Amino acid sequence: VSGQPRRLALVIEYDGSPPLAGSQIQKNAPSIQGEIESALRKLTGERLRVAFAGRTDAGVHARGQVAAFTTISRLNTEVFVRGLNAWLPQSIAVRCAAEVDETFDPRRHASRRTYRYLIYNAPVASPLWRGRAWHVAEPLDTERMQRAARLLAGEHDFAAFSRREGVTTVRRVYRCQVRARPPLVTVEVEANAFLRQQVRRTVGALAQVGRGKLAVAGFRGLLQRAEPASAGPVAPPQGLYLMRVTYPGLDLGGRMR
Amino acid sequence: VSGQPRRLALVIEYDGSPPLAGSQIQKNAPSIQGEIESALRKLTGERLRVAFAGRTDAGVHARGQVAAFTTISRLNTEVFVRGLNAWLPQSIAVRCAAEVDETFDPRRHASRRTYRYLIYNAPVASPLWRGRAWHVAEPLDTERMQRAARLLAGEHDFAAFSRREGVTTVRRVYRCQVRARPPLVTVEVEANAFLRQQVRRTVGALAQVGRGKLAVAGFRGLLQRAEPASAGPVAPPQGLYLMRVTYPGLDLGGRMR
Repeated sequence: VSGQPRRLALVIEYDGSPPLAGSQIQKNAPSIQGEIESALRKLTGERLRVAFAGRTDAGVHARGQVAAFTTISRLNTEVFVRGLNAWLPQSIAVRCAAEVDETFDPRRHASRRTYRYLIYNAPVASPLWRGRAWHVAEPLDTERMQRAARLLAGEHDFAAFSRREGVTTVRRVYRCQVRARPPLVTVEVEANAFLRQQVRRTVGALAQVGRGKLAVAGFRGLLQRAEPASAGPVAPPQGLYLMRVTYPGLDLGGRMR
Repeated sequence: VSGQPRRLALVIEYDGSPPLAGSQIQKNAPSIQGEIESALRKLTGERLRVAFAGRTDAGVHARGQVAAFTTISRLNTEVFVRGLNAWLPQSIAVRCAAEVDETFDPRRHASRRTYRYLIYNAPVASPLWRGRAWHVAEPLDTERMQRAARLLAGEHDFAAFSRREGVTTVRRVYRCQVRARPPLVTVEVEANAFLRQQVRRTVGALAQVGRGKLAVAGFRGLLQRAEPASAGPVAPPQGLYLMRVTYPGLDLGGRMR
Protein backbone atom coordinates (compact mmCIF):
# COMPACT_ATOMS: atom_id res chain seq x y z
CA VAL A 1 0.00 0.00 0.00
CA SER A 2 2.49 2.67 -1.08
CA GLY A 3 2.24 5.69 -3.31
CA GLN A 4 3.52 9.21 -3.81
CA PRO A 5 5.37 10.74 -0.84
CA ARG A 6 3.10 12.82 1.34
CA ARG A 7 3.71 14.74 4.52
CA LEU A 8 1.69 14.16 7.66
CA ALA A 9 1.56 16.16 10.87
CA LEU A 10 0.61 14.58 14.21
CA VAL A 11 -0.65 16.24 17.39
CA ILE A 12 0.86 14.27 20.25
CA GLU A 13 0.16 14.05 23.97
CA TYR A 14 2.59 12.49 26.42
CA ASP A 15 3.38 11.92 30.03
CA GLY A 16 7.08 12.79 30.03
CA SER A 17 7.81 10.99 33.34
CA PRO A 18 10.58 8.34 33.48
CA PRO A 19 11.43 6.05 31.78
CA LEU A 20 10.96 8.54 28.92
CA ALA A 21 14.02 10.76 28.69
CA GLY A 22 12.64 13.72 26.71
CA SER A 23 11.37 14.38 23.21
CA GLN A 24 14.61 13.90 21.30
CA ILE A 25 16.00 10.55 20.27
CA GLN A 26 18.70 9.19 22.60
CA LYS A 27 21.21 6.38 22.45
CA ASN A 28 20.40 4.50 25.65
CA ALA A 29 17.02 5.73 26.83
CA PRO A 30 13.49 5.74 25.42
CA SER A 31 12.35 9.07 23.98
CA ILE A 32 9.14 10.40 22.46
CA GLN A 33 10.79 10.64 19.05
CA GLY A 34 12.22 7.13 19.32
CA GLU A 35 8.85 5.64 20.30
CA ILE A 36 7.01 7.46 17.50
CA GLU A 37 9.59 6.39 14.89
CA SER A 38 9.43 2.82 16.17
CA ALA A 39 5.61 2.80 15.98
CA LEU A 40 5.74 4.29 12.47
CA ARG A 41 8.11 1.57 11.36
CA LYS A 42 5.77 -1.12 12.68
CA LEU A 43 2.77 0.51 11.03
CA THR A 44 4.25 1.42 7.63
CA GLY A 45 7.39 -0.72 7.32
CA GLU A 46 9.31 2.49 6.59
CA ARG A 47 12.25 3.89 8.55
CA LEU A 48 11.06 7.46 8.95
CA ARG A 49 12.63 10.51 10.59
CA VAL A 50 10.19 12.57 12.58
CA ALA A 51 10.65 16.33 13.08
CA PHE A 52 9.23 17.98 16.22
CA ALA A 53 7.88 21.47 16.81
CA GLY A 54 9.97 21.83 19.93
CA ARG A 55 12.28 19.91 22.19
CA THR A 56 10.99 18.99 25.64
CA ASP A 57 13.33 17.86 28.42
CA ALA A 58 12.94 14.69 30.47
CA GLY A 59 9.96 15.02 32.81
CA VAL A 60 8.20 17.67 30.70
CA HIS A 61 4.74 16.74 29.42
CA ALA A 62 2.79 17.66 26.30
CA ARG A 63 -0.87 17.97 25.39
CA GLY A 64 -0.17 19.33 21.90
CA GLN A 65 3.34 18.60 20.66
CA VAL A 66 3.46 18.59 16.85
CA ALA A 67 5.52 16.19 14.79
CA ALA A 68 5.81 15.70 11.03
CA PHE A 69 7.18 13.09 8.65
CA THR A 70 7.06 12.14 4.98
CA THR A 71 5.72 8.73 4.05
CA ILE A 72 4.87 6.74 0.96
CA SER A 73 2.16 4.88 2.89
CA ARG A 74 -1.36 5.42 1.59
CA LEU A 75 -3.04 4.67 4.90
CA ASN A 76 -5.50 7.41 5.70
CA THR A 77 -4.99 9.74 8.63
CA GLU A 78 -7.60 7.97 10.81
CA VAL A 79 -5.74 4.71 10.37
CA PHE A 80 -2.48 6.44 11.26
CA VAL A 81 -3.99 7.67 14.53
CA ARG A 82 -5.41 4.30 15.53
CA GLY A 83 -2.46 2.28 14.22
CA LEU A 84 0.18 4.40 15.95
CA ASN A 85 -1.76 4.39 19.22
CA ALA A 86 -1.93 0.60 19.05
CA TRP A 87 1.90 0.42 18.90
CA LEU A 88 2.81 3.31 21.20
CA PRO A 89 3.33 2.86 24.95
CA GLN A 90 0.43 4.18 27.07
CA SER A 91 2.47 7.23 28.04
CA ILE A 92 2.27 8.59 24.47
CA ALA A 93 -0.80 9.12 22.29
CA VAL A 94 -1.42 10.59 18.87
CA ARG A 95 -4.50 12.80 19.23
CA CYS A 96 -4.95 13.53 15.54
CA ALA A 97 -3.19 13.49 12.19
CA ALA A 98 -3.51 15.76 9.18
CA GLU A 99 -2.04 15.87 5.71
CA VAL A 100 0.12 18.98 5.29
CA ASP A 101 2.18 20.69 2.62
CA GLU A 102 5.29 18.73 1.61
CA THR A 103 7.48 21.61 2.79
CA PHE A 104 5.86 21.73 6.28
CA ASP A 105 8.46 22.24 9.02
CA PRO A 106 6.84 21.92 12.48
CA ARG A 107 9.53 23.97 14.20
CA ARG A 108 10.22 26.75 11.69
CA HIS A 109 6.64 27.26 10.55
CA ALA A 110 5.19 27.56 14.05
CA SER A 111 3.96 31.08 14.81
CA ARG A 112 3.08 30.52 18.48
CA ARG A 113 3.67 28.09 21.29
CA THR A 114 1.67 27.85 24.49
CA TYR A 115 3.06 26.31 27.66
CA ARG A 116 1.30 25.75 30.95
CA TYR A 117 3.11 25.29 34.24
CA LEU A 118 1.40 23.80 37.32
CA ILE A 119 2.47 24.59 40.86
CA TYR A 120 0.91 22.62 43.72
CA ASN A 121 0.95 25.18 46.53
CA ALA A 122 0.18 23.54 49.88
CA PRO A 123 2.13 22.55 52.98
CA VAL A 124 2.14 18.84 52.12
CA ALA A 125 3.10 17.43 48.70
CA SER A 126 0.26 15.78 46.79
CA PRO A 127 0.53 12.09 45.82
CA LEU A 128 -2.03 12.73 43.08
CA TRP A 129 0.05 15.54 41.52
CA ARG A 130 3.39 13.81 41.90
CA GLY A 131 5.29 14.03 38.61
CA ARG A 132 2.62 16.43 37.29
CA ALA A 133 3.23 19.64 39.23
CA TRP A 134 5.92 21.44 41.22
CA HIS A 135 5.29 21.28 44.96
CA VAL A 136 5.87 24.66 46.64
CA ALA A 137 5.16 24.52 50.37
CA GLU A 138 5.41 28.24 51.23
CA PRO A 139 2.26 30.24 50.45
CA LEU A 140 2.51 32.12 47.15
CA ASP A 141 1.08 35.60 46.64
CA THR A 142 -0.49 35.01 43.26
CA GLU A 143 -1.58 38.62 42.80
CA ARG A 144 2.04 39.75 43.01
CA MET A 145 2.97 36.96 40.61
CA GLN A 146 0.31 38.10 38.17
CA ARG A 147 1.58 41.72 38.32
CA ALA A 148 5.06 40.47 37.46
CA ALA A 149 3.78 38.09 34.78
CA ARG A 150 2.04 40.91 32.94
CA LEU A 151 5.40 42.67 32.46
CA LEU A 152 6.53 39.84 30.17
CA ALA A 153 4.06 40.66 27.39
CA GLY A 154 5.72 42.25 24.37
CA GLU A 155 9.07 41.94 22.65
CA HIS A 156 11.94 41.67 25.14
CA ASP A 157 15.45 40.34 25.47
CA PHE A 158 14.84 37.25 27.62
CA ALA A 159 18.54 36.51 28.18
CA ALA A 160 17.99 36.59 31.95
CA PHE A 161 15.58 33.66 31.53
CA SER A 162 17.92 31.36 29.64
CA ARG A 163 21.41 29.98 29.68
CA ARG A 164 23.97 31.93 27.67
CA GLU A 165 23.20 31.38 24.01
CA GLY A 166 25.05 32.61 20.91
CA VAL A 167 21.96 33.55 18.97
CA THR A 168 19.50 36.33 19.65
CA THR A 169 17.64 36.09 22.91
CA VAL A 170 14.82 38.42 21.84
CA ARG A 171 11.38 36.84 21.81
CA ARG A 172 7.81 38.08 21.66
CA VAL A 173 5.53 37.02 24.50
CA TYR A 174 1.85 37.40 23.66
CA ARG A 175 0.48 36.55 27.06
CA CYS A 176 1.60 35.39 30.50
CA GLN A 177 -1.15 34.68 33.03
CA VAL A 178 -1.06 33.48 36.60
CA ARG A 179 -4.25 31.87 37.88
CA ALA A 180 -4.94 30.68 41.39
CA ARG A 181 -7.21 27.64 41.74
CA PRO A 182 -6.15 26.56 45.24
CA PRO A 183 -4.15 24.50 45.84
CA LEU A 184 -3.04 24.84 42.21
CA VAL A 185 -1.32 27.89 40.73
CA THR A 186 -1.22 27.85 36.95
CA VAL A 187 1.15 29.92 34.83
CA GLU A 188 0.29 30.02 31.15
CA VAL A 189 2.55 31.70 28.64
CA GLU A 190 2.26 32.11 24.90
CA ALA A 191 5.09 33.38 22.70
CA ASN A 192 6.31 33.27 19.13
CA ALA A 193 9.17 31.04 20.33
CA PHE A 194 11.01 30.23 23.55
CA LEU A 195 14.64 30.05 24.62
CA ARG A 196 15.75 26.82 26.26
CA GLN A 197 14.35 26.56 29.80
CA GLN A 198 12.69 29.95 29.39
CA VAL A 199 9.35 28.87 30.86
CA ARG A 200 10.95 27.01 33.77
CA ARG A 201 13.20 29.99 34.57
CA THR A 202 10.25 32.37 34.24
CA VAL A 203 8.23 30.26 36.68
CA GLY A 204 11.24 29.99 39.00
CA ALA A 205 11.49 33.80 39.11
CA LEU A 206 7.70 34.24 39.44
CA ALA A 207 7.74 31.85 42.42
CA GLN A 208 10.42 34.04 44.03
CA VAL A 209 8.06 36.99 43.53
CA GLY A 210 5.19 34.97 45.01
CA ARG A 211 7.29 34.04 48.05
CA GLY A 212 8.19 37.71 48.57
CA LYS A 213 11.88 37.08 47.90
CA LEU A 214 11.94 39.13 44.69
CA ALA A 215 10.12 42.45 44.25
CA VAL A 216 8.03 43.06 41.15
CA ALA A 217 10.48 45.87 40.35
CA GLY A 218 13.35 43.40 40.62
CA PHE A 219 11.53 41.09 38.23
CA ARG A 220 11.13 44.00 35.81
CA GLY A 221 14.86 44.64 36.13
CA LEU A 222 15.57 41.12 34.81
CA LEU A 223 13.90 42.09 31.56
CA GLN A 224 15.81 45.38 31.37
CA ARG A 225 19.31 44.17 32.29
CA ALA A 226 19.06 40.92 30.33
CA GLU A 227 22.08 39.29 31.96
CA PRO A 228 22.20 35.61 31.01
CA ALA A 229 20.71 33.25 33.56
CA SER A 230 20.28 36.02 36.15
CA ALA A 231 16.65 35.13 36.84
CA GLY A 232 17.80 32.55 39.35
CA PRO A 233 16.29 29.16 40.16
CA VAL A 234 14.88 26.94 37.43
CA ALA A 235 11.50 25.40 38.21
CA PRO A 236 11.60 21.58 37.88
CA PRO A 237 10.47 19.91 34.64
CA GLN A 238 7.49 17.91 35.90
CA GLY A 239 5.20 20.96 36.18
CA LEU A 240 5.64 21.93 32.53
CA TYR A 241 3.21 21.12 29.71
CA LEU A 242 3.55 22.03 26.03
CA MET A 243 -0.12 22.78 25.40
CA ARG A 244 -0.24 23.73 21.72
CA VAL A 245 1.68 24.92 18.72
CA THR A 246 0.02 27.26 16.27
CA TYR A 247 0.63 27.49 12.51
CA PRO A 248 -0.68 30.32 10.32
CA GLY A 249 -3.54 29.12 8.16
CA LEU A 250 -3.41 25.54 9.47
CA ASP A 251 -5.76 23.91 11.96
CA LEU A 252 -4.38 20.58 13.10
CA GLY A 253 -7.30 19.92 15.45
CA GLY A 254 -6.76 18.38 18.88
CA ARG A 255 -7.02 21.80 20.46
CA MET A 256 -9.03 20.95 23.54
CA ARG A 257 -7.31 21.58 26.85
CA VAL B 1 8.08 10.30 75.01
CA SER B 2 4.90 8.49 76.07
CA GLY B 3 1.89 9.42 78.12
CA GLN B 4 -1.84 8.95 78.42
CA PRO B 5 -3.58 7.29 75.46
CA ARG B 6 -5.02 9.81 73.04
CA ARG B 7 -6.88 9.42 69.80
CA LEU B 8 -5.73 11.09 66.59
CA ALA B 9 -7.49 11.46 63.26
CA LEU B 10 -5.60 11.85 59.99
CA VAL B 11 -6.78 13.24 56.67
CA ILE B 12 -5.04 11.18 54.01
CA GLU B 13 -4.50 11.59 50.29
CA TYR B 14 -3.37 8.75 48.06
CA ASP B 15 -2.80 7.66 44.52
CA GLY B 16 -4.42 4.24 44.64
CA SER B 17 -2.66 2.95 41.49
CA PRO B 18 -0.66 -0.30 41.64
CA PRO B 19 1.33 -1.50 43.51
CA LEU B 20 -1.16 -0.37 46.19
CA ALA B 21 -4.00 -2.88 46.44
CA GLY B 22 -6.68 -0.80 48.16
CA SER B 23 -7.22 0.75 51.55
CA GLN B 24 -7.53 -2.39 53.64
CA ILE B 25 -4.60 -4.39 54.93
CA GLN B 26 -3.74 -7.44 52.82
CA LYS B 27 -1.52 -10.44 53.26
CA ASN B 28 0.66 -10.24 50.16
CA ALA B 29 0.20 -6.75 48.75
CA PRO B 30 0.87 -3.23 49.99
CA SER B 31 -2.22 -1.34 51.16
CA ILE B 32 -2.91 2.15 52.43
CA GLN B 33 -3.66 0.80 55.90
CA GLY B 34 -0.51 -1.34 55.90
CA GLU B 35 1.70 1.57 54.86
CA ILE B 36 0.17 3.91 57.45
CA GLU B 37 0.56 1.33 60.23
CA SER B 38 4.13 0.67 59.17
CA ALA B 39 4.95 4.41 59.18
CA LEU B 40 3.29 4.78 62.61
CA ARG B 41 5.41 1.98 63.96
CA LYS B 42 8.59 3.62 62.69
CA LEU B 43 7.55 6.98 64.11
CA THR B 44 6.19 5.93 67.51
CA GLY B 45 7.59 2.45 68.10
CA GLU B 46 4.01 1.28 68.74
CA ARG B 47 2.12 -1.41 66.84
CA LEU B 48 -1.10 0.46 66.16
CA ARG B 49 -4.32 -0.52 64.43
CA VAL B 50 -5.73 2.18 62.21
CA ALA B 51 -9.47 2.47 61.49
CA PHE B 52 -10.63 4.03 58.20
CA ALA B 53 -13.75 6.04 57.34
CA GLY B 54 -14.37 3.88 54.30
CA ARG B 55 -12.87 1.09 52.28
CA THR B 56 -11.53 1.96 48.83
CA ASP B 57 -10.79 -0.73 46.26
CA ALA B 58 -7.51 -1.13 44.38
CA GLY B 59 -7.08 1.71 41.88
CA VAL B 60 -9.41 4.11 43.75
CA HIS B 61 -7.83 7.37 44.91
CA ALA B 62 -8.47 9.65 47.86
CA ARG B 63 -8.05 13.34 48.57
CA GLY B 64 -9.69 13.13 52.00
CA GLN B 65 -9.78 9.63 53.46
CA VAL B 66 -9.98 9.76 57.25
CA ALA B 67 -8.16 7.37 59.56
CA ALA B 68 -7.92 7.20 63.34
CA PHE B 69 -5.78 5.46 65.93
CA THR B 70 -5.01 5.58 69.64
CA THR B 71 -1.44 6.24 70.70
CA ILE B 72 0.52 6.83 73.88
CA SER B 73 3.01 8.97 71.94
CA ARG B 74 3.18 12.61 73.04
CA LEU B 75 4.43 13.89 69.69
CA ASN B 76 2.30 16.82 68.61
CA THR B 77 0.05 16.62 65.56
CA GLU B 78 2.45 18.68 63.39
CA VAL B 79 5.22 16.22 64.11
CA PHE B 80 2.88 13.34 63.28
CA VAL B 81 2.16 14.87 59.87
CA ARG B 82 5.80 15.50 59.01
CA GLY B 83 7.08 12.29 60.55
CA LEU B 84 4.54 10.03 58.86
CA ASN B 85 5.11 11.73 55.49
CA ALA B 86 8.84 11.11 55.88
CA TRP B 87 8.20 7.36 56.23
CA LEU B 88 5.28 6.94 53.81
CA PRO B 89 5.79 6.11 50.13
CA GLN B 90 5.23 9.10 47.80
CA SER B 91 1.87 7.68 46.73
CA ILE B 92 0.41 8.37 50.21
CA ALA B 93 0.44 11.61 52.20
CA VAL B 94 -1.02 12.73 55.49
CA ARG B 95 -2.50 16.18 54.85
CA CYS B 96 -3.32 16.99 58.45
CA ALA B 97 -3.80 15.46 61.89
CA ALA B 98 -6.10 16.42 64.74
CA GLU B 99 -6.71 15.21 68.27
CA VAL B 100 -10.22 13.76 68.60
CA ASP B 101 -12.46 12.28 71.26
CA GLU B 102 -11.25 8.90 72.54
CA THR B 103 -14.46 7.28 71.25
CA PHE B 104 -14.08 8.68 67.73
CA ASP B 105 -14.99 6.08 65.08
CA PRO B 106 -14.16 7.39 61.59
CA ARG B 107 -16.67 5.09 59.87
CA ARG B 108 -19.63 5.14 62.24
CA HIS B 109 -19.44 8.80 63.18
CA ALA B 110 -19.25 10.08 59.60
CA SER B 111 -22.38 11.98 58.58
CA ARG B 112 -21.49 12.51 54.90
CA ARG B 113 -19.07 11.26 52.29
CA THR B 114 -18.27 12.97 49.01
CA TYR B 115 -16.91 11.10 46.02
CA ARG B 116 -15.82 12.49 42.68
CA TYR B 117 -15.60 10.45 39.51
CA LEU B 118 -13.64 11.62 36.46
CA ILE B 119 -14.46 10.53 32.92
CA TYR B 120 -12.07 11.47 30.12
CA ASN B 121 -14.43 11.81 27.16
CA ALA B 122 -12.52 12.02 23.89
CA PRO B 123 -11.82 9.71 20.94
CA VAL B 124 -8.23 9.00 22.02
CA ALA B 125 -7.24 7.97 25.57
CA SER B 126 -5.11 10.51 27.43
CA PRO B 127 -1.62 9.51 28.64
CA LEU B 128 -1.82 12.31 31.21
CA TRP B 129 -5.09 10.97 32.69
CA ARG B 130 -4.07 7.33 32.57
CA GLY B 131 -4.86 5.71 35.93
CA ARG B 132 -6.70 8.90 36.97
CA ALA B 133 -9.87 8.86 34.88
CA TRP B 134 -12.09 6.49 32.91
CA HIS B 135 -11.63 6.84 29.17
CA VAL B 136 -14.97 6.89 27.32
CA ALA B 137 -14.49 7.32 23.58
CA GLU B 138 -18.14 7.81 22.51
CA PRO B 139 -19.46 11.35 23.01
CA LEU B 140 -21.51 11.69 26.20
CA ASP B 141 -24.63 13.84 26.41
CA THR B 142 -23.87 15.46 29.75
CA GLU B 143 -27.19 17.30 29.94
CA ARG B 144 -29.05 14.01 29.85
CA MET B 145 -26.64 12.64 32.45
CA GLN B 146 -27.32 15.63 34.68
CA ARG B 147 -31.11 15.13 34.36
CA ALA B 148 -30.68 11.52 35.48
CA ALA B 149 -28.21 12.42 38.23
CA ARG B 150 -30.69 14.83 39.81
CA LEU B 151 -33.12 11.94 40.34
CA LEU B 152 -30.73 10.38 42.84
CA ALA B 153 -31.13 13.13 45.44
CA GLY B 154 -33.17 12.01 48.44
CA GLU B 155 -33.67 8.79 50.32
CA HIS B 156 -33.88 5.78 48.01
CA ASP B 157 -33.33 2.06 47.92
CA PHE B 158 -30.08 1.87 45.96
CA ALA B 159 -30.11 -1.94 45.61
CA ALA B 160 -29.89 -1.59 41.83
CA PHE B 161 -26.54 0.17 42.30
CA SER B 162 -24.88 -2.48 44.45
CA ARG B 163 -24.29 -6.17 44.66
CA ARG B 164 -26.83 -8.17 46.63
CA GLU B 165 -26.35 -7.32 50.28
CA GLY B 166 -28.11 -8.68 53.35
CA VAL B 167 -28.41 -5.35 55.12
CA THR B 168 -30.56 -2.41 54.18
CA THR B 169 -29.77 -0.80 50.84
CA VAL B 170 -31.49 2.48 51.63
CA ARG B 171 -29.21 5.51 51.61
CA ARG B 172 -29.70 9.28 51.50
CA VAL B 173 -28.01 11.10 48.61
CA TYR B 174 -27.66 14.82 49.26
CA ARG B 175 -26.36 15.78 45.85
CA CYS B 176 -25.31 14.24 42.55
CA GLN B 177 -23.91 16.62 39.95
CA VAL B 178 -22.58 16.08 36.46
CA ARG B 179 -20.28 18.78 35.14
CA ALA B 180 -18.79 19.01 31.66
CA ARG B 181 -15.36 20.57 31.39
CA PRO B 182 -14.33 19.09 28.03
CA PRO B 183 -12.74 16.68 27.63
CA LEU B 184 -13.48 15.88 31.29
CA VAL B 185 -16.88 14.93 32.66
CA THR B 186 -17.05 15.05 36.44
CA VAL B 187 -19.66 13.29 38.55
CA GLU B 188 -19.76 14.37 42.18
CA VAL B 189 -22.00 12.65 44.68
CA GLU B 190 -22.52 13.25 48.37
CA ALA B 191 -24.48 10.88 50.63
CA ASN B 192 -24.80 9.87 54.24
CA ALA B 193 -23.17 6.54 53.33
CA PHE B 194 -22.60 4.39 50.27
CA LEU B 195 -23.14 0.76 49.36
CA ARG B 196 -20.15 -1.12 47.97
CA GLN B 197 -19.42 -0.01 44.40
CA GLN B 198 -22.40 2.35 44.54
CA VAL B 199 -20.57 5.29 42.97
CA ARG B 200 -18.96 3.19 40.26
CA ARG B 201 -22.30 1.56 39.40
CA THR B 202 -24.01 4.95 39.44
CA VAL B 203 -21.41 6.35 37.03
CA GLY B 204 -21.67 3.22 34.87
CA ALA B 205 -25.42 3.76 34.55
CA LEU B 206 -25.04 7.53 34.00
CA ALA B 207 -22.57 6.81 31.20
CA GLN B 208 -25.19 4.57 29.58
CA VAL B 209 -27.59 7.51 29.79
CA GLY B 210 -24.94 9.79 28.29
CA ARG B 211 -24.34 7.37 25.42
CA GLY B 212 -28.07 7.23 24.71
CA LYS B 213 -28.29 3.53 25.61
CA LEU B 214 -30.46 4.10 28.67
CA ALA B 215 -33.34 6.59 28.81
CA VAL B 216 -33.65 8.96 31.76
CA ALA B 217 -36.95 7.18 32.50
CA GLY B 218 -35.12 3.85 32.54
CA PHE B 219 -32.61 5.30 34.97
CA ARG B 220 -35.49 6.44 37.19
CA GLY B 221 -36.85 2.89 37.03
CA LEU B 222 -33.66 1.56 38.57
CA LEU B 223 -34.42 3.59 41.68
CA GLN B 224 -38.03 2.42 41.75
CA ARG B 225 -37.55 -1.30 41.07
CA ALA B 226 -34.42 -1.63 43.22
CA GLU B 227 -33.39 -5.02 41.83
CA PRO B 228 -29.89 -5.86 43.03
CA ALA B 229 -27.11 -5.03 40.55
CA SER B 230 -29.61 -4.19 37.79
CA ALA B 231 -27.93 -0.86 36.99
CA GLY B 232 -25.55 -2.68 34.70
CA PRO B 233 -21.87 -1.95 34.00
CA VAL B 234 -19.54 -0.88 36.81
CA ALA B 235 -17.27 2.05 35.95
CA PRO B 236 -13.60 1.19 36.53
CA PRO B 237 -11.87 2.14 39.80
CA GLN B 238 -9.23 4.54 38.52
CA GLY B 239 -11.71 7.40 37.93
CA LEU B 240 -12.93 7.39 41.53
CA TYR B 241 -11.77 9.76 44.28
CA LEU B 242 -12.91 9.83 47.92
CA MET B 243 -12.90 13.62 48.32
CA ARG B 244 -13.96 14.13 51.92
CA VAL B 245 -15.68 12.69 54.94
CA THR B 246 -17.76 14.94 57.16
CA TYR B 247 -18.28 14.62 60.92
CA PRO B 248 -20.87 16.61 62.88
CA GLY B 249 -19.19 19.27 64.95
CA LEU B 250 -15.67 18.32 63.87
CA ASP B 251 -13.48 20.14 61.35
CA LEU B 252 -10.47 18.03 60.50
CA GLY B 253 -9.07 20.60 58.05
CA GLY B 254 -7.52 19.54 54.78
CA ARG B 255 -10.71 20.41 52.98
CA MET B 256 -9.30 22.04 49.85
CA ARG B 257 -10.11 20.32 46.58
